Amino acid sequence: MEVRAAVAYAADRPLVLDTVQLDGPRAGEVLVEIKATGVCHTDAFTLSGGDPEGRFPTILGHEGAGVVVDVGPGVRSLRPGDHVIPLYTPECRECEYCLSGKTNLCQAIRATQGRGVMPDGTSRFSIGGQPLYHYMGTSTFANYTVLPEIALAKIREDAPFDKVCYIGCGVTTGIGAVIYTARVRAGDNVVVFGLGGIGLNVIQGARMAGADRIVGVDINPGRRAIAERFGMTHFVNPREVEDDLVPYLVSITKGGADFSFECIGNVTTMRQALECCHKGWGTSIIIGVAASGEEIRTRPFQLVTGRNWRGSAFGGARGRTDVPKIVDWYMEGKINIDDLITHTLPLAEINTAFDLMRRGESIRTVLTY
Amino acid sequence: MEVRAAVAYAADRPLVLDTVQLDGPRAGEVLVEIKATGVCHTDAFTLSGGDPEGRFPTILGHEGAGVVVDVGPGVRSLRPGDHVIPLYTPECRECEYCLSGKTNLCQAIRATQGRGVMPDGTSRFSIGGQPLYHYMGTSTFANYTVLPEIALAKIREDAPFDKVCYIGCGVTTGIGAVIYTARVRAGDNVVVFGLGGIGLNVIQGARMAGADRIVGVDINPGRRAIAERFGMTHFVNPREVEDDLVPYLVSITKGGADFSFECIGNVTTMRQALECCHKGWGTSIIIGVAASGEEIRTRPFQLVTGRNWRGSAFGGARGRTDVPKIVDWYMEGKINIDDLITHTLPLAEINTAFDLMRRGESIRTVLTY
Repeated sequence: MEVRAAVAYAADRPLVLDTVQLDGPRAGEVLVEIKATGVCHTDAFTLSGGDPEGRFPTILGHEGAGVVVDVGPGVRSLRPGDHVIPLYTPECRECEYCLSGKTNLCQAIRATQGRGVMPDGTSRFSIGGQPLYHYMGTSTFANYTVLPEIALAKIREDAPFDKVCYIGCGVTTGIGAVIYTARVRAGDNVVVFGLGGIGLNVIQGARMAGADRIVGVDINPGRRAIAERFGMTHFVNPREVEDDLVPYLVSITKGGADFSFECIGNVTTMRQALECCHKGWGTSIIIGVAASGEEIRTRPFQLVTGRNWRGSAFGGARGRTDVPKIVDWYMEGKINIDDLITHTLPLAEINTAFDLMRRGESIRTVLTY
Repeated sequence: MEVRAAVAYAADRPLVLDTVQLDGPRAGEVLVEIKATGVCHTDAFTLSGGDPEGRFPTILGHEGAGVVVDVGPGVRSLRPGDHVIPLYTPECRECEYCLSGKTNLCQAIRATQGRGVMPDGTSRFSIGGQPLYHYMGTSTFANYTVLPEIALAKIREDAPFDKVCYIGCGVTTGIGAVIYTARVRAGDNVVVFGLGGIGLNVIQGARMAGADRIVGVDINPGRRAIAERFGMTHFVNPREVEDDLVPYLVSITKGGADFSFECIGNVTTMRQALECCHKGWGTSIIIGVAASGEEIRTRPFQLVTGRNWRGSAFGGARGRTDVPKIVDWYMEGKINIDDLITHTLPLAEINTAFDLMRRGESIRTVLTY
């Protein structure tokens, strides 16, 4: 079938709206009509050429929502008409990782996903007979896409696509890091580095978990108001702190953070995030993605005296199990997504969406089809 | 009273057997007759002058066992005749740290202990009117010493002093890191870097916890036999591994270690210990003490893909609560201490004990009084 897609023909070039060919779903695959998609920094990172796994030409996009149109042979958990969110972290419920109960990093289709193809090693997208690579197993910058059954979360039908698409990445990454990775408890003190689309979701996750002090750290004072609306109790602008940042953060968390979250991707703030944790038990969780080759460092004494250094991917959430719950939280008013979606544009304006993000003028832009 | 002690008058000099003055216990303090003490690398580290907290002249020693002789006003948990193990990590059961349930790092007397004095700010030891510093709150290289009540674990009276003194540091540090910090479970795969006095105790702790593969890593092939006796299932000599060590360790643990333990104090092996952990959930625990100023480093991707970096001090054990249980494990034959004590010497030969350790000829030397 012919579908309309924003094609990334090469690194560091604007996307091109084009009509491309999409083959139907094969065994274990599902054809989905994408209704809305967010534009995330990870898309921009890959488009920039900095992603070692980036392959061109490709159809980017990994934060979508849509409706099942057709299913391939053997698909049993979904049928046409189901509302779904694509999962770049799938959940097969059969691999060693899924069955461990200790991680969300399903490895069932990791190798082919990383190579930009479907699990059978081929692509469903092409143009003029030339294959286009899939991206993160999702390729949501097209109005139709094909995904493995295990990479789709079935969600309630009353949820608005142009809001819950954000749960496909940013919302889950932030809230999940608090709820599933850190397991923040009522009364904990939390420090969040970076008040962008992830950090603000960490903040509302911390509020939902009953955290006591929720300290936000950002050099952009313009983020203070919305962060406070999302639950931040203390704002720290490192440029306005006269003394060293780490002891200052330790003081306002009354001994150090029970949990800190790095949502920037900067190895210097990753170190600060660890070292502002409470002696004896404080845990720092890295969410941000650092530039290729960058390394974190600290003195081992920081760990021997009880701090823990961890990371979180897709918020530690199991896609098919947890994503539908987060959609429920949104529909029940437990979490706020609307105020984070600062712009909604048609797919045709996708390059504008990237520009808004690069200039820091948007928190999240959602594209509709 | 006059007591017999091995005095460290200055850094990097032999200890001097001398008669020193010991004042009786003040409020909350206990006079203990030391019956036996181990000699540990930490004593040698401080004696070398490399320890930033090291102060001279002092009486070293932190791995002892003895009998209560007298108690100061207000002491209620101990009385003369009780058998005890001194605790360089005390347990007050009243401070924020003790009450957190999340750490063994009681802070009640941390500041004065670090300054080499009793909690009231003074020393009980002196010679010719000149005060001698306490060391780690224990100073077990004297046949009598004074400690705070909260720094003594009461143990059963049938336990031999010249064996269970080792529980005052090395045994608890190794076994505790497995049982209390890591909480290794039956079936877990474990990698242990360094098969010295700590590493061998990690190995027997892992065996006790029912670990499956227990991989020991050491460049000294002479440690293989005893490590196997203590439960090691696979020995790896990095000098004999043709490929890179980390992927080799990942392969023999069938995907990576569930838990790794660094018992050397080398920042390079600390990184290897982290990176040989299983993707998704593997946890590396730093036990060894690195040289001053050294830093650990890795790519944040290691953490974002699910590895955890932690540390352990005194095995995560609460001294007054857990040390008596470890003494029971020894008396019940659940753990082996005797085979780790390679030398037993009188206090007068303490400098020989340090020489044996520096030359790597002993696992543990115990001094008797």
